[in-house]
Amino acid sequence: MDYRIEKDTIGEVQVPANVYWGAQTERSIQNFDIAKDINKMPKEIIKAFAYLKKAAALTNRDAGVMDAEKAELIGKVCDEILEGKLDDQFPLVVWQTGSGTQSNMNCNEVIAYRGHVLNGGKLTDKQKTIHPNDDVNKSQSSNDTFPTAMHIAAYKILMEVTIPGIEKLRDTLDAKSKEFMHVVKIGRTHFMDATPLTVGQELSGYVSQLNHGIKAIKNTLGHLSELALGGTAVGTGINTPKDYAVNVAKHIADLTGYPFVTAENKFEALAAHDAIVEAHGALKTVAVSLMKIGNDIRMLSSGPRSGIGELSIPANEPGSSIMPGKVNPTQSEAITMAAAQILGNDVAINVGGATGHFELNVFKPMMIYNFLHSARLIGDACVSFNDNCAVGLEPLYDNIKRQLNNSLMLVTALNTKIGYYKAAEIAQTAHQNGTSLKEEAVRLGYLTEAEFDEWVRPEDMVGDLPK
Amino acid sequence: MDYRIEKDTIGEVQVPANVYWGAQTERSIQNFDIAKDINKMPKEIIKAFAYLKKAAALTNRDAGVMDAEKAELIGKVCDEILEGKLDDQFPLVVWQTGSGTQSNMNCNEVIAYRGHVLNGGKLTDKQKTIHPNDDVNKSQSSNDTFPTAMHIAAYKILMEVTIPGIEKLRDTLDAKSKEFMHVVKIGRTHFMDATPLTVGQELSGYVSQLNHGIKAIKNTLGHLSELALGGTAVGTGINTPKDYAVNVAKHIADLTGYPFVTAENKFEALAAHDAIVEAHGALKTVAVSLMKIGNDIRMLSSGPRSGIGELSIPANEPGSSIMPGKVNPTQSEAITMAAAQILGNDVAINVGGATGHFELNVFKPMMIYNFLHSARLIGDACVSFNDNCAVGLEPLYDNIKRQLNNSLMLVTALNTKIGYYKAAEIAQTAHQNGTSLKEEAVRLGYLTEAEFDEWVRPEDMVGDLPK
Amino acid sequence: MDYRIEKDTIGEVQVPANVYWGAQTERSIQNFDIAKDINKMPKEIIKAFAYLKKAAALTNRDAGVMDAEKAELIGKVCDEILEGKLDDQFPLVVWQTGSGTQSNMNCNEVIAYRGHVLNGGKLTDKQKTIHPNDDVNKSQSSNDTFPTAMHIAAYKILMEVTIPGIEKLRDTLDAKSKEFMHVVKIGRTHFMDATPLTVGQELSGYVSQLNHGIKAIKNTLGHLSELALGGTAVGTGINTPKDYAVNVAKHIADLTGYPFVTAENKFEALAAHDAIVEAHGALKTVAVSLMKIGNDIRMLSSGPRSGIGELSIPANEPGSSIMPGKVNPTQSEAITMAAAQILGNDVAINVGGATGHFELNVFKPMMIYNFLHSARLIGDACVSFNDNCAVGLEPLYDNIKRQLNNSLMLVTALNTKIGYYKAAEIAQTAHQNGTSLKEEAVRLGYLTEAEFDEWVRPEDMVGDLPK
Amino acid sequence: MDYRIEKDTIGEVQVPANVYWGAQTERSIQNFDIAKDINKMPKEIIKAFAYLKKAAALTNRDAGVMDAEKAELIGKVCDEILEGKLDDQFPLVVWQTGSGTQSNMNCNEVIAYRGHVLNGGKLTDKQKTIHPNDDVNKSQSSNDTFPTAMHIAAYKILMEVTIPGIEKLRDTLDAKSKEFMHVVKIGRTHFMDATPLTVGQELSGYVSQLNHGIKAIKNTLGHLSELALGGTAVGTGINTPKDYAVNVAKHIADLTGYPFVTAENKFEALAAHDAIVEAHGALKTVAVSLMKIGNDIRMLSSGPRSGIGELSIPANEPGSSIMPGKVNPTQSEAITMAAAQILGNDVAINVGGATGHFELNVFKPMMIYNFLHSARLIGDACVSFNDNCAVGLEPLYDNIKRQLNNSLMLVTALNTKIGYYKAAEIAQTAHQNGTSLKEEAVRLGYLTEAEFDEWVRPEDMVGDLPK
Repeated sequence: MDYRIEKDTIGEVQVPANVYWGAQTERSIQNFDIAKDINKMPKEIIKAFAYLKKAAALTNRDAGVMDAEKAELIGKVCDEILEGKLDDQFPLVVWQTGSGTQSNMNCNEVIAYRGHVLNGGKLTDKQKTIHPNDDVNKSQSSNDTFPTAMHIAAYKILMEVTIPGIEKLRDTLDAKSKEFMHVVKIGRTHFMDATPLTVGQELSGYVSQLNHGIKAIKNTLGHLSELALGGTAVGTGINTPKDYAVNVAKHIADLTGYPFVTAENKFEALAAHDAIVEAHGALKTVAVSLMKIGNDIRMLSSGPRSGIGELSIPANEPGSSIMPGKVNPTQSEAITMAAAQILGNDVAINVGGATGHFELNVFKPMMIYNFLHSARLIGDACVSFNDNCAVGLEPLYDNIKRQLNNSLMLVTALNTKIGYYKAAEIAQTAHQNGTSLKEEAVRLGYLTEAEFDEWVRPEDMVGDLPK
Repeated sequence: MDYRIEKDTIGEVQVPANVYWGAQTERSIQNFDIAKDINKMPKEIIKAFAYLKKAAALTNRDAGVMDAEKAELIGKVCDEILEGKLDDQFPLVVWQTGSGTQSNMNCNEVIAYRGHVLNGGKLTDKQKTIHPNDDVNKSQSSNDTFPTAMHIAAYKILMEVTIPGIEKLRDTLDAKSKEFMHVVKIGRTHFMDATPLTVGQELSGYVSQLNHGIKAIKNTLGHLSELALGGTAVGTGINTPKDYAVNVAKHIADLTGYPFVTAENKFEALAAHDAIVEAHGALKTVAVSLMKIGNDIRMLSSGPRSGIGELSIPANEPGSSIMPGKVNPTQSEAITMAAAQILGNDVAINVGGATGHFELNVFKPMMIYNFLHSARLIGDACVSFNDNCAVGLEPLYDNIKRQLNNSLMLVTALNTKIGYYKAAEIAQTAHQNGTSLKEEAVRLGYLTEAEFDEWVRPEDMVGDLPK
Repeated sequence: MDYRIEKDTIGEVQVPANVYWGAQTERSIQNFDIAKDINKMPKEIIKAFAYLKKAAALTNRDAGVMDAEKAELIGKVCDEILEGKLDDQFPLVVWQTGSGTQSNMNCNEVIAYRGHVLNGGKLTDKQKTIHPNDDVNKSQSSNDTFPTAMHIAAYKILMEVTIPGIEKLRDTLDAKSKEFMHVVKIGRTHFMDATPLTVGQELSGYVSQLNHGIKAIKNTLGHLSELALGGTAVGTGINTPKDYAVNVAKHIADLTGYPFVTAENKFEALAAHDAIVEAHGALKTVAVSLMKIGNDIRMLSSGPRSGIGELSIPANEPGSSIMPGKVNPTQSEAITMAAAQILGNDVAINVGGATGHFELNVFKPMMIYNFLHSARLIGDACVSFNDNCAVGLEPLYDNIKRQLNNSLMLVTALNTKIGYYKAAEIAQTAHQNGTSLKEEAVRLGYLTEAEFDEWVRPEDMVGDLPK
Repeated sequence: MDYRIEKDTIGEVQVPANVYWGAQTERSIQNFDIAKDINKMPKEIIKAFAYLKKAAALTNRDAGVMDAEKAELIGKVCDEILEGKLDDQFPLVVWQTGSGTQSNMNCNEVIAYRGHVLNGGKLTDKQKTIHPNDDVNKSQSSNDTFPTAMHIAAYKILMEVTIPGIEKLRDTLDAKSKEFMHVVKIGRTHFMDATPLTVGQELSGYVSQLNHGIKAIKNTLGHLSELALGGTAVGTGINTPKDYAVNVAKHIADLTGYPFVTAENKFEALAAHDAIVEAHGALKTVAVSLMKIGNDIRMLSSGPRSGIGELSIPANEPGSSIMPGKVNPTQSEAITMAAAQILGNDVAINVGGATGHFELNVFKPMMIYNFLHSARLIGDACVSFNDNCAVGLEPLYDNIKRQLNNSLMLVTALNTKIGYYKAAEIAQTAHQNGTSLKEEAVRLGYLTEAEFDEWVRPEDMVGDLPK
């Protein structure tokens, strides 16, 4: 391979001749050969850096500490990054310095050197138009840029992937809930037969879970909207021009279209990532919901002949390599696996969040890696589950009807008529004898057949239904 | 021991002669001999049951399905429970049926039989004034009472123990932050010397964390304020009078003084406990904050001679059984141990929350046990940390000053004057030679002594301070 | 309350007149008012201290640094502790100093002062026969005694509660597995109908899980058998007589009957608790097994009319406060709740284990609290599940037979005769038409009725069975 | 793009013309668009499949149910997979069916169709030499192949990446421990000054942790060496020739060089992945060790002027984008981030392991994804930490000496001479007065200067050192 020489404050480094990155990126490649093929720094973080580097340049220009041409050049490269044109210039992994300094420098170097080339220079020029530290990183530190990129990336993915994904699934389940609101079925508590409800009511519980989950996520956006930028090295804002923090947040809000503001307290913003911990607390709540929903759907559609068998789900693929004709609840499996992953990611984030020291938390890349992973898994898995499973959910009316009418728990309707103890006697006797409730109710002399028919009507046991 | 005979729908049971509980409580004692000495059902749940049983009786009375005398009698026993007079009547453990049915029945039995005695009856009377199922449990099911008790207990402990505890510590740290706002000290990032900040700024980061944590908890109160009661067996409200759900929530709100409302969707409220998962997500966020704060305080007070040594903390007890005169940051240790516990409790809650099936989640007692544990730990540990440590925090001015003046990272102030690379050269040379920045800055010819003195002033590097 | 005055190196403290504890215990009570009613230092730790304090006294005596009378007196009090006579003398909570110094001193004080009284002295005597630090704690530090107590308590509970509990359940399941080895039933994969196996085979999987779990626990006993004692303050063994470490471990082995040895490396033994982390890794593995087994049992016994319904379990108590006659898989619920708790405890232990610094880990009480909790939960829950559920497991033959014969997945037997694709066609057609495999196999012309009857025999599909 | 038509039992599918995969792989691509860019099925699993598919072909051939040419052809393609020639033929993601059926079929299809091409056929041939199900998957099911691949992949990565990585770091630390065995330094407990030990002793604790960690991993290899293959659909071994399970395990052992055996109980082997849970329990233990070691190293090397400053670590890169000349403990940060990740992965694995149902656990891909992630992180991070940090560890003798001599805890040596209380008085007085122990010891009259000099010698307080 061809190389060129780049320098940083430690000395010279050989860098592949044609890449835009420089000495510090190259050092990181060499010093951190950890899970290189699977754990690249997430692309969402790189794009977030593009927003913030452009915003910083604009703010520096406005403040009179950077000339307009440099700011424009920096902005141009940032736009290229956002368009995905420089994707292969960000080779670093998550497992690097815990401040993300190396990815910050990767961005600084690529923006500086690509900017120099855009400006007509050559990568081998000793003196470049733009300096990674003094220009691209001006009025910044890794310590405030990386957490800013974390918040930008987190906020964006929640708004653009996670919440829309949940909403899509929620809308389908809501429509199904309304469609099947009057299909009465047996309820199950403790996995055991219980009093009836309708298919629509059962589905409405999932809708309510997802609605609360969306609300829980939205509750955490406020903390995420606070940006560290302007705190620089330790939160004091050393080396920033006047009003820089407020103004750069405005630029970021402007560029991204989201209501970012400068964090009121920069010391927290560098030293802790409670906003990430808190927001992921909402994501794990949604994961818990999805585990419940995915499990229920697969259990309700179990069978076809020896399971619960109350819902039919789409047969998307052959289910088994050995059992011919088998269909499996594969979307439930994917979404519950994703949920399990998120419960794990949550712990990684907690441990990282808890282990900051003094003025800096240095578990930043690990924390945002897990956050973005979870946020994407929820969004993608909800869409996949929706498109390939939820939209095709249908009641299996015959099974539903048969299981409803068999149920001994319809006896509950008699509590208010004959008391809990006599009602229990009827149910227990029918269970022992393998008979029906009506038979035993009458035989035991607790009520007449007519009374039974009037009082024990599944459709009267499901409460008021929305029309 | 003396026994009397009690009956339930399964048959007769010997019960200690003088206890107020009945057959089902006794069966649970015998069938669930698990960690009996350490895992009693939390007292907060018993008290929450007292509120809801009284509220249910009042609502039943208002609805005309219970006579006023019975309702009053039930209410009286509930008041006794709230006053702690019947504490020894609730012997059951957490590890019972996952719906909490046995603790619900424990409450029903104690209220019924104590009510009967209050009414002049005897425990050995065959026929009692009040029936555990048909009266005390009227218009209820374990499936809606236990989750209601969970929300009441959770809401109350957050408002009465957790939040006040955090606020107490927050207020102390805030006062200390203001008091020491002008004490300039060295900053540390990556555990390494960095640019300066003030003791007050450092503490303000903790205050900000706690403020955000309180906000995070409050964000989850809405979901917790929704009560399952009125859903009865599976969420449909079978066997409840008209408007029962709304009215019983009003009574509970009235009795407790908190804004409880009936859950819009009862199917979620029985089958999932996402509100608990979500709220504990806020608690684990606070635990993460406390871990950071506790760690920082112990590190900042480390020494006395060979550590960081910038803060002094109260010497509350001899620190060592072998090393005479040793003082340890024991309050930091207690609060960080509590934080670790809460991170574990969070996982237990997640697993429980994720494993509900169909119309009922049956990890209820385990979930609320962990929730209440965490909520109490935060509240108590914050108060303990506050009273025995935070209130006595004092800067060790000599150490602070010495370490500040030594710092090579003051060189950062020169970035905007001579550029990052020359500044780095100064710092590196001083580090190698064990000299001061000023010496090397002048020797290298990058600036004059006067310039150095003007530009490198720690007190100018800490940004604008609140007055 | 009456008080007496006790002193430690910090000064005087009022102590209740009649208790055996002294100044440092009292300080801890006052300084750590955290979850006091629910989180006492586990009694297993107190007893472990009794073993080690006695062993230390004997070793000191053997080494000639303690006179025989003192050693005997100390041993006598330790015996009283082991007999439970002094249970109310250990009031401290888990949330204290992270080294457990205060509980070590609690033991030192109680042993010293009770020893003084046994020797005829009075609690109010200024000068006591035995000194908490200079005698009871001789050749020791909290830093080596507490981790030693952790290992003793952990080892003992595993051997005496956890493993026997698992074995009891394992034996019952093994007997049931053999008893029902020839009861052919439908298999289920992905919760969907699959090829057959026998009830005994299904249960044998659980037996195998538990056997592997026991082996996993035993694999960790080696690390747990290593004792820190003799390391004293930082692992160097300062202030111990010659060969103390080896000899005191021998005494402990002798007193407890378990093969304890002195840890080869004392620095690890104080600074890290990887043995606890590792051993709890085995406990969480067993918890995962129990979750699977508990879930399966409740699902297999679901119904009675609208579930899987292949196993009957004992009806130990009324299942519902509202649904008369309901029976629930309550033992499955208790054991799976316990399993969830253990998965949480594991995380708390991990966080604690990961957060030691330099020569000491100060999450000791929290770690052992969680360890003992898990170990007890497994032991107790296995026994409870065994006695109240597993012993009564019975196949529901009618349901088993009906579901087996309905199964479309019997078609798998035809793969080797007619190929996967044709077999799939048969199964799919039968599914669509609601017909039997035989009907469609013959109708599609892929085989004769006789061939079908010969090839598709469930009892031939279950492999070789043990006799 | 050009397409060809492929078929499975559900119907026709368009597949890119030139790929070797077929209908079922293509369906999975379309149905599971979840985190596609970041969560490919791990390459280690694909290679494990290559081993087992080859072994199955050989075993089928030996058993006379497959002709030798087909078996050879299958083996050839497997060899190509192992050489990495077909890497781009495995496009599926982790988030698919939980049995891994789709990745099993991906392998079956690629092997069949590539085999057909190797044999001179064309991808568009309707009839192919080898059939994915009837040949490549012969005597197999996804349900036994995927867990077999999990164990092969897990065992191999532990032996080839994880353990060697740990050993490399262990060896370096061991050498450093020996090298610095006589460098006496201050000890620290509770982050506070304590009695002395040597740098070598301190490092020996880490060595002991890693040695125990390696042993813990090796303890779990036995369970991992048990292979599910031969259990086929539900564990009964339906559709396998005689002695298939034992023989195929022998072939796998032969091909991989590792002592794999057939699992004694196939029902466990399909339905549970406790071996993965257990082995990851060892990995999380190592993660806990690495967190401790990484933290200690960064704290011991903190400074350069205002920290602990007892160790020097290599300066591999500029530490800060804003603070010139800053050097950070970046390898500690990478390895502790990896450790945090592993603690999270552990929980994901636990949740997956706990959630199997009946005859199959369907969290397989998620579980092995996390396992391989952790195993690689440990291996890679240990090597990175070793090569870029541990090998360069050096004591900073001046700081070590200064801090040692200042220490008040040297007073501990006086316990056995003058008792704990007087020793405490000396230390406390010196602390209050800012004086030395000797000054106060003499001034208080407890000993002479000569006695002090004889008794208080740090080098005598570190116990017996290995030569």
